[in-house]
Amino acid sequence: MSEKLASIVILFAHPTVHRSRVNRVLFERVKAVPGVATRDLYELYPDFNIDVEAEQNALREADLVVFQHPIYWYSVPAILKEWMDVVLTRGFAYGSGGDALRGKDALLAVSTGGSAQAYTSAGQHRHPFEDLIRPLQQTAVFCGMRCLPPLVLHGGRGPVSKERLNEHAQRYTQLLIDYQQRGS
Amino acid sequence: MSEKLASIVILFAHPTVHRSRVNRVLFERVKAVPGVATRDLYELYPDFNIDVEAEQNALREADLVVFQHPIYWYSVPAILKEWMDVVLTRGFAYGSGGDALRGKDALLAVSTGGSAQAYTSAGQHRHPFEDLIRPLQQTAVFCGMRCLPPLVLHGGRGPVSKERLNEHAQRYTQLLIDYQQRGS
Repeated sequence: MSEKLASIVILFAHPTVHRSRVNRVLFERVKAVPGVATRDLYELYPDFNIDVEAEQNALREADLVVFQHPIYWYSVPAILKEWMDVVLTRGFAYGSGGDALRGKDALLAVSTGGSAQAYTSAGQHRHPFEDLIRPLQQTAVFCGMRCLPPLVLHGGRGPVSKERLNEHAQRYTQLLIDYQQRGS
Repeated sequence: MSEKLASIVILFAHPTVHRSRVNRVLFERVKAVPGVATRDLYELYPDFNIDVEAEQNALREADLVVFQHPIYWYSVPAILKEWMDVVLTRGFAYGSGGDALRGKDALLAVSTGGSAQAYTSAGQHRHPFEDLIRPLQQTAVFCGMRCLPPLVLHGGRGPVSKERLNEHAQRYTQLLIDYQQRGS
């Protein structure tokens, strides 16, 4: 084991966090893990005017980049799409000399409004969830990152019991702590 | 044939249109088709502050909604994601009473930087293009819309000959004109 803990940054995106029932709780819990860096994108950039240099520097520091957000229209909330559009530039994230993210790990830590059953060919969303997040995972892969298995809480629009939320938060925090222990 | 032409609205999204080599030309061409409504989202909303009521009213008028944009990270540019997040609301686009888009047609008119060959399992993007746009098409389907086959110009980052661009523009404008003739 390395003496230095592995470095983690969480990119958090929720446009109305005061109305969040799932993501706010999860974010509070992982923020409390010592040594985990967090960037609350809607709080940092209410006008969508993203500081590209600051974001790129935060990525350079990290071994693991976590994308935590509710799934909106089978994808990221808009601020995170803007982040992808302006931060993941050619020469930084891909293309000639663009190796800043190469070998880092990426984790989707997401919630869906619909149930797991809705994400089947017979369900309301007509596709398995893993098919719908392919563009997000391929974005990470294109930048040379490895995708950890996504951490998904389905059914966030319905009632989520305190026990289930707590169990999920526990799984999420433990995953981060275990990752840190792998060392940098 | 109906006496009234079918109604078309084009949602155009390109953040740096002055640097566009493909989309600007295509957009100029389709704007010139009489009776086609256009909404240049980055021009209308440079601060991402979308007028939800104006956007919903524009949709209500339309039989066909065209999404014209370059593909960024296997998806829409961020302004169009914000548009999806704030305009396609429950009670308008889906859910109880949310039938404003039901029965309308949707068309993706998009360009990619990479070649068609890059969108294969052996290619740089590792997936067929139609798999990667599934979240966009499923968004339309979830709102009760029918997806027309997408109109895609691949290889926009490389040199695109004047002939090829012209031929594609011709196909695009003709598709709109033919659609209008179907009647409302």
